[in-house]
Amino acid sequence: MIIVGELINASRKKIKEAIENADADYIKDIAIQQDKAGASYVDVNAGVFVGEEPEKLVWLVETVQSVVEKPLALDSPDPKAIEAAMKVHKGTPMLNSISMEKDRWEKLSPVIANTDIKVVALCMSDAGMPTTAADRIAIAEKLVEGLSGINIPRDNIYIDPLVQPVGTDYTFGIEFLKAVSGIKEKFEGVHIMCGLSNISFGLPERKFLNRIFMGQAILNGLDGAIIDPLDGPMMGTIAGAVALVGKDKGCRGYLKAFRAGLVKA
Amino acid sequence: MIIVGELINASRKKIKEAIENADADYIKDIAIQQDKAGASYVDVNAGVFVGEEPEKLVWLVETVQSVVEKPLALDSPDPKAIEAAMKVHKGTPMLNSISMEKDRWEKLSPVIANTDIKVVALCMSDAGMPTTAADRIAIAEKLVEGLSGINIPRDNIYIDPLVQPVGTDYTFGIEFLKAVSGIKEKFEGVHIMCGLSNISFGLPERKFLNRIFMGQAILNGLDGAIIDPLDGPMMGTIAGAVALVGKDKGCRGYLKAFRAGLVKA
Repeated sequence: MIIVGELINASRKKIKEAIENADADYIKDIAIQQDKAGASYVDVNAGVFVGEEPEKLVWLVETVQSVVEKPLALDSPDPKAIEAAMKVHKGTPMLNSISMEKDRWEKLSPVIANTDIKVVALCMSDAGMPTTAADRIAIAEKLVEGLSGINIPRDNIYIDPLVQPVGTDYTFGIEFLKAVSGIKEKFEGVHIMCGLSNISFGLPERKFLNRIFMGQAILNGLDGAIIDPLDGPMMGTIAGAVALVGKDKGCRGYLKAFRAGLVKA
Repeated sequence: MIIVGELINASRKKIKEAIENADADYIKDIAIQQDKAGASYVDVNAGVFVGEEPEKLVWLVETVQSVVEKPLALDSPDPKAIEAAMKVHKGTPMLNSISMEKDRWEKLSPVIANTDIKVVALCMSDAGMPTTAADRIAIAEKLVEGLSGINIPRDNIYIDPLVQPVGTDYTFGIEFLKAVSGIKEKFEGVHIMCGLSNISFGLPERKFLNRIFMGQAILNGLDGAIIDPLDGPMMGTIAGAVALVGKDKGCRGYLKAFRAGLVKA
């Protein structure tokens, strides 16, 4: 599983303050914690700084990469911010994210065309949020075609089918899960990556539901997640789920998670 | 989900003692607790009483049905015990269980032929325990054919694909899960029912793994489980998993489980 650590996001108050005050130590500390907890990528987002996003995102990239050797997920819909961040990023970054919304696609696709960047591609179009598996698969088809057309290989595509709350409509969980397996079957080689916590919006004991859903999504082919890697029970759940679906020889990953204290019944 | 409460089993020391001492109050108490916790069936097993199993099983049936209105799962491979228990059982019981092992099949099938009993049918033959999905589906085919041949309708068949420990072979989890969906697809109308705890045998924090696996099995079509219904987090997990796969309109079952204190992150 590819884990994208989501904590360095300026929509969180403390992160916003740290960026405003150029408090590099605070950002470095959060980056190191996520790295040690097993993040494959560290997400960086400076979206709340309208007009200053490129320079703030560049500062985040340089600050995080001064202490962490992992690649980053550049989290912005702003082509100027992404372009600037890509220039200073060491190694191969991830774009979080493109979509089939006309404006977003037209502005971001030239920036990433013919590069080796990994791309999170949201199943979102100008028609709005998808609700059924079929809706998602149809948008995924356009995303895969579009990204192939600008020379992004399938192995670098991470489709996000977009989770919607099961408390809003009781079919939203299963439609998402069917989309995960459907997209994996139809577009061989692409990955599925997303945040899952939206599934439990409006319901009690959200973390309890989120963990069960993570296990189910991994069974259906989810191979990346944008989460808080400091959430021990969730990281333990991922290790357990991966072992249960035959992707952990000797259950070594599960046993490692157990020894790290992430697995507690 | 059909929940079979597994606690009244003479392989458990206190149950064995209660049967020996004809301590009806103890048995009734365990039966009532399982009933209140949401068991659909109460399993009764007197298997350790060799030579006396029919009379002990009859006593269990009468004792439990004196306080619980639910049907029972008659848990024995002994045709004499099953026949005697069926005679005193009020309503439609469940047989736990038949298999394709020659001796077991030949002795039990005449007892249940042309009745409306529900039948748990193990994917076990004289060739031993199945390990792959294909093995299980092949045995399930024989079970469905055999049971159809003695006039057991598909809706009364509960195939148990038999869970084997993922700690023994890392493919054992996914092969079981593929068997669940494979059997449901191939034999329309049959149910899948089993105990799941064997999945975690030999690994640490077994209950943690068991819950993730329950969520995954429910996604693939499991519609019954033989478990301890007093295990609150497992019952909560089942409620959550059922809601996540689109089988709980308005998330009412999940919210009920939450109010009952079964759901805690």
